[in-house]
Amino acid sequence: MDFTFDERTEELRDRLLTFMDEFVYPVEHLFHDQALRTDARWERPAAMAELKRQARARGLWNLFLGGDQGAGLTNAQYAPLAEITGWSPEVAPEALNCNPPDTGNMELLTLFGTEDQRERWLAPLLEGRIRSAYCMTEPAVASSDPANLRTTITDDGTHWVIDGVKWWSTGAMSSDCKLLVVMGTTDPDADSRNRHSLVLVPRDTPGVTVRRGLQIFGFEHGAHGGHAEIQFKGTRVPKNYLLGERGRGQALAQARLGPGRIHHCMRMVGMAERAIDLMCRRASERIAFGSPLADQGIIQHWIAESRVKVDQLRLYVLHAAWLIDTVGAQQARNEISAIKVAAPDVVGWIIDKAIQVHGAAGLAQDHPLAMLWAQARTMRFIDGADEVHRMVVAARELHRHGGADAVRAGSAGVRCLTG
Amino acid sequence: MDFTFDERTEELRDRLLTFMDEFVYPVEHLFHDQALRTDARWERPAAMAELKRQARARGLWNLFLGGDQGAGLTNAQYAPLAEITGWSPEVAPEALNCNPPDTGNMELLTLFGTEDQRERWLAPLLEGRIRSAYCMTEPAVASSDPANLRTTITDDGTHWVIDGVKWWSTGAMSSDCKLLVVMGTTDPDADSRNRHSLVLVPRDTPGVTVRRGLQIFGFEHGAHGGHAEIQFKGTRVPKNYLLGERGRGQALAQARLGPGRIHHCMRMVGMAERAIDLMCRRASERIAFGSPLADQGIIQHWIAESRVKVDQLRLYVLHAAWLIDTVGAQQARNEISAIKVAAPDVVGWIIDKAIQVHGAAGLAQDHPLAMLWAQARTMRFIDGADEVHRMVVAARELHRHGGADAVRAGSAGVRCLTG
Amino acid sequence: MDFTFDERTEELRDRLLTFMDEFVYPVEHLFHDQALRTDARWERPAAMAELKRQARARGLWNLFLGGDQGAGLTNAQYAPLAEITGWSPEVAPEALNCNPPDTGNMELLTLFGTEDQRERWLAPLLEGRIRSAYCMTEPAVASSDPANLRTTITDDGTHWVIDGVKWWSTGAMSSDCKLLVVMGTTDPDADSRNRHSLVLVPRDTPGVTVRRGLQIFGFEHGAHGGHAEIQFKGTRVPKNYLLGERGRGQALAQARLGPGRIHHCMRMVGMAERAIDLMCRRASERIAFGSPLADQGIIQHWIAESRVKVDQLRLYVLHAAWLIDTVGAQQARNEISAIKVAAPDVVGWIIDKAIQVHGAAGLAQDHPLAMLWAQARTMRFIDGADEVHRMVVAARELHRHGGADAVRAGSAGVRCLTG
Amino acid sequence: MDFTFDERTEELRDRLLTFMDEFVYPVEHLFHDQALRTDARWERPAAMAELKRQARARGLWNLFLGGDQGAGLTNAQYAPLAEITGWSPEVAPEALNCNPPDTGNMELLTLFGTEDQRERWLAPLLEGRIRSAYCMTEPAVASSDPANLRTTITDDGTHWVIDGVKWWSTGAMSSDCKLLVVMGTTDPDADSRNRHSLVLVPRDTPGVTVRRGLQIFGFEHGAHGGHAEIQFKGTRVPKNYLLGERGRGQALAQARLGPGRIHHCMRMVGMAERAIDLMCRRASERIAFGSPLADQGIIQHWIAESRVKVDQLRLYVLHAAWLIDTVGAQQARNEISAIKVAAPDVVGWIIDKAIQVHGAAGLAQDHPLAMLWAQARTMRFIDGADEVHRMVVAARELHRHGGADAVRAGSAGVRCLTG
Repeated sequence: MDFTFDERTEELRDRLLTFMDEFVYPVEHLFHDQALRTDARWERPAAMAELKRQARARGLWNLFLGGDQGAGLTNAQYAPLAEITGWSPEVAPEALNCNPPDTGNMELLTLFGTEDQRERWLAPLLEGRIRSAYCMTEPAVASSDPANLRTTITDDGTHWVIDGVKWWSTGAMSSDCKLLVVMGTTDPDADSRNRHSLVLVPRDTPGVTVRRGLQIFGFEHGAHGGHAEIQFKGTRVPKNYLLGERGRGQALAQARLGPGRIHHCMRMVGMAERAIDLMCRRASERIAFGSPLADQGIIQHWIAESRVKVDQLRLYVLHAAWLIDTVGAQQARNEISAIKVAAPDVVGWIIDKAIQVHGAAGLAQDHPLAMLWAQARTMRFIDGADEVHRMVVAARELHRHGGADAVRAGSAGVRCLTG
Repeated sequence: MDFTFDERTEELRDRLLTFMDEFVYPVEHLFHDQALRTDARWERPAAMAELKRQARARGLWNLFLGGDQGAGLTNAQYAPLAEITGWSPEVAPEALNCNPPDTGNMELLTLFGTEDQRERWLAPLLEGRIRSAYCMTEPAVASSDPANLRTTITDDGTHWVIDGVKWWSTGAMSSDCKLLVVMGTTDPDADSRNRHSLVLVPRDTPGVTVRRGLQIFGFEHGAHGGHAEIQFKGTRVPKNYLLGERGRGQALAQARLGPGRIHHCMRMVGMAERAIDLMCRRASERIAFGSPLADQGIIQHWIAESRVKVDQLRLYVLHAAWLIDTVGAQQARNEISAIKVAAPDVVGWIIDKAIQVHGAAGLAQDHPLAMLWAQARTMRFIDGADEVHRMVVAARELHRHGGADAVRAGSAGVRCLTG
Repeated sequence: MDFTFDERTEELRDRLLTFMDEFVYPVEHLFHDQALRTDARWERPAAMAELKRQARARGLWNLFLGGDQGAGLTNAQYAPLAEITGWSPEVAPEALNCNPPDTGNMELLTLFGTEDQRERWLAPLLEGRIRSAYCMTEPAVASSDPANLRTTITDDGTHWVIDGVKWWSTGAMSSDCKLLVVMGTTDPDADSRNRHSLVLVPRDTPGVTVRRGLQIFGFEHGAHGGHAEIQFKGTRVPKNYLLGERGRGQALAQARLGPGRIHHCMRMVGMAERAIDLMCRRASERIAFGSPLADQGIIQHWIAESRVKVDQLRLYVLHAAWLIDTVGAQQARNEISAIKVAAPDVVGWIIDKAIQVHGAAGLAQDHPLAMLWAQARTMRFIDGADEVHRMVVAARELHRHGGADAVRAGSAGVRCLTG
Repeated sequence: MDFTFDERTEELRDRLLTFMDEFVYPVEHLFHDQALRTDARWERPAAMAELKRQARARGLWNLFLGGDQGAGLTNAQYAPLAEITGWSPEVAPEALNCNPPDTGNMELLTLFGTEDQRERWLAPLLEGRIRSAYCMTEPAVASSDPANLRTTITDDGTHWVIDGVKWWSTGAMSSDCKLLVVMGTTDPDADSRNRHSLVLVPRDTPGVTVRRGLQIFGFEHGAHGGHAEIQFKGTRVPKNYLLGERGRGQALAQARLGPGRIHHCMRMVGMAERAIDLMCRRASERIAFGSPLADQGIIQHWIAESRVKVDQLRLYVLHAAWLIDTVGAQQARNEISAIKVAAPDVVGWIIDKAIQVHGAAGLAQDHPLAMLWAQARTMRFIDGADEVHRMVVAARELHRHGGADAVRAGSAGVRCLTG
């Protein structure tokens, strides 16, 4: 058992921390101000282009992607870097070309794209020249149950014809977004695991209507292209725009999720650390009733609990990352569900306390806390609601304790998947 | 002991419930859409004027105000009506001319205004022709400790000269807002309870700069005039614009708070009931994995806990209202602190669960839940942070148990203030 | 709406508070010491007889029982008295002949007993000369679902023959316990609501084996006759020992539960008040790091939250008591389920904090806190597990929000059952 | 980063798991029954001697102790073994001679004992022939603040004379306990860190009165010698019975605590795993309302949360163990405080849920759950109350975020002490 990061990780952490100080934190306010620009509400601030150039020049680029297309890091190596980007989730991930949903889409194209598809879409995505969106969730149905999906992708002989409405398609309000990866039913009569497919749909295809941006609490995330509701009405794309095998949409979607959840969770660890940092500074500086807030027992209680909670969470996510590297995402699926449940709970709690220490100012735009909190709250839905993940974890647990080896298995603890 | 509402209350409840159905719920969406209007971001939707006319015609007007200026209701009579308005807090309270901060300002003017002041400001406020703001909180200091206030109100012989920065002045972004009630230091050498005064400042006085609107989790509440940051720089008003006695600002502010907290808390009870209603309907209608969400045990658990929590809270607030009516706000101050602590905790929890039942849709603008949640969260700061109120409650409790009569007092329970 | 207690209640409260001070608190230690007496582990301390005499002499006797057999109080009048007895739950309820399960058994005999049964069993119970037990729960099955009960009561022509095992028969280890009220299946082929009956079984009937006392977190409650496991093996009682109608056992059991849950919950309110009293005194007296524990913010937080929680709970239980008096236990059944869920949660939390303020001493026998906590924890099972009660509350709530009148009904709040 | 256990650990885990199955679980009931034996309430069941013999024969002996006196394991190697013993905390730790307070006392004697002291006391302790107790906590004062200690150890020229009262001296009720390690004031005028010393006091020394056993809830832990209150009155021991340097008592006590807290916390992880195992089995077997409890959503929720919580906790404790091995207990003191806070919270929550799944049976002696819960609750006091440890963690956190390197330090996360 060894908890030290390896040399490459340490070197990249160091470089990234410097990049955060020099480039990221100084421009954070621009991203907020963008939200108030009525003329360009859904576009990135100009500063983003320069950030990307600088990150790329420093080798801080496509760190999320294994293999020789990306930085070639393991999940355990990338995880601590994702944490650091979580300190500024509005700016840092995209500056490094490591922001969802582009990361997941790039992974899909890397793994399942044809040569043509990779050339046309993956190459510009890897260079950060275009953005993409992922169109799965639908407004009319409970999307945690794929059987509910209503969007159809029909083979009319030469083309796929797409009909349906998607929402929560992050990034799609922006004109930078050129590609929509769309999930729909191609084979309604197949069993539920072989019923859906993914197709690549250029955003400017006729029959695509980007209707409106959804708010999260009152935030629109315009600087990242918002969260779009999109109507597909007789939208036609050539047959070779299918991504991967027909009917394998759910399987592809799963492949995309494992590492993506590690990224989300490690960024949330970073968000919590940012909140702790702000909470401690505020508590030290603000005076009430004659002494710093930090002297109040209840605030010390919050700070201590925050440390206790986030350190456990970090180890938990790192462990899941290591499991993916060593036994594979499929074998580690329960641990991945588990971190998805743990992270928003812990991180939301911590940010809430940081807000409280800031007084009403903590709710407003002068501090990043309200935005961080809204992101953490959102994570209780993204990639599956908490409740669904808990059912997964419970089912496995009940199964493990059903047999004769339960005691032995139970005590195996940390390495239970490798035993 | 009798838990029934009296006849007048029942009659008004009935009338108000009908008004909600016929006039309020149908226009709720207009208030949200207003937030997206870039040309009139801080103004009320036109529908509000008609709502007010209808409410007034039905005798649903100034219900909050005792005496013959208002409806003459006791706190215990008004409280159940405030609950009903909480089902639509963006629309109903103002439609009935019962919305803060105007209510508190009208109370102040009724109790402490000179005849001139009442004629000039109270009359149009009571008729809903103008709006007002209350300027107490300051950005640079912990406002829960009045000793920290930095705004000065200086006597230059003929005028009061106001210098300082205030924020969270709700309503002041709107052009409907004509009056600012400003707290500041007139007597810096007096002891802390006799140091501050209130002055009436027309919003268009030279030296008043309304700088910007503050957001609450991304919400601007533009349709209610937002939450303003206001700079006062050499702002001069005549000497007779002082409200009440010089140096008694803190005492006046306290007088304003007791009933105001009842109103806030009862509206929050209504917000929680709205959330429970939405949660139950969604749980019944939405199908996942082959059955309604309502069949899931965890959702039943949330619904049951919501009922258990909100019914306790309602009784608690009604009891505090009754105490104000029977022993006075001063004697009931601990109970008023206690409901202020209890309400946001309970109501925030319930709305959070209603959001979760709605899936990601619960975060967005198609449902009122995110807005309701943000309001409930804000209540942990408004009129004093939770932490300050808890210190008040704890101090009283420790005092009560110090003496020989503690056991007897402790068991006195519900009527402890009247014994 | 009026929260004052009536004159009779106030007069009895006063008398009872004096009785607690003069007679109950001084002998509490005897009840603990009894637990250590190996020669008489299951018997009452001798002091109990004198306590009963004194209580009866002061008219503090059978207060729980309505009608002319008892004190004739309403539930709302008795509830505040039950709270006071909760300050010393090991001593006071029995001293007043108001302790379960005798109270429930006396109610059953009053309502459903024949003249013979009342003469033989009710009379001595009302005088406190004998004790009784209630035998419903069974070790082998989930007793919250009556369909599971396995004990049979067979008609052999002249007698009922009882076979089965019961446990958690409180009081039955003691030789003072003369009567067992036993639930079993008389009509296995009837529908589940008409399948069970209650029979009266003298504890010394052949075929009754009182096997052992059950512990609750190590406590045996020997001074109250413990919690017995009892085997019935071919136990025969005459046909006229049936209580109430054949096949109506479940209905009788329900009749017994409504007021009983009010009693339990109000006593728990008193237990919480006792814990708050002990917590405040300890916090004021104990010095750590140079100042009283009461100066620590986290302890103030606990004290304030305790007050906020218990005052809400008390009002909730009083409201349910008032509902039983005004609309009947059947109509108030959801509110009764709700208080059963609320009380152990709130009271357990408070006692836990009081323990923490006492340091490790809070766990031990020198303070009543550990015993109080164990009782509160037990209440999450007694008369139905929390989970079952929450399902009841959720089902009603979902039903209420299904129809067109939901909004109106929802806002009806406190008096929803009377509207 | 590598989460695998090394070969020696795996081999010992395997051997220990077999030992648990073959020897420990089969005799657990004897330890409960012992509690009911009135003739030998404070003595070990005879089975313990055989268990020890078997454990020693298998090389499962003194595993806690580094160096060549013990098994020579690192903390990270021993921790997973301590977890396994936590599945049966009443039996397994002592069977392996790894039970507190003997472990701590053996460490003290190993590190600081003179040759004579080691020969007389350490040798028989290492062989499990005698037991010892640790006398620090005092009834009259808040022991978390050492300045409060009142026991005096006075030099009368030839002897140390001890006067004072100690309690919570675990094990001292038993006649197997031969040695008391006593903390007291030798140098009242020294500063608070150099005021106390430790002396070795044979339990049969004149002037030692073992007064009574303390209960934890209703448990006496008689089979482990209980928790004694001991009076020292003019108790005299020779001058060479001083342990370590005069005035260094607090420093010695600290040395004892680091690894001891790892042991406590890992055993608690094992207790939680035992509870999860029992909860899952019960949920699968018990039928209510026609299906297993495991089908109920709320129970699945509890099971999932239990897994999520305990896996985080285990990693947290293992990380702290690794830190002690790599940077030393002094450098890891904040992490050690942090696990002490985290463990009882998590483990108590889990056991509580397991109890609830068992119904009232979960409270009683037929299952180990109530006993496990009481132990977990006790851990919120042992070796420092939660509140004191949280203050330590908060102070470090506030300090870290005060300086310019806070962001960098904050993001360092897992390896923050090694950076």
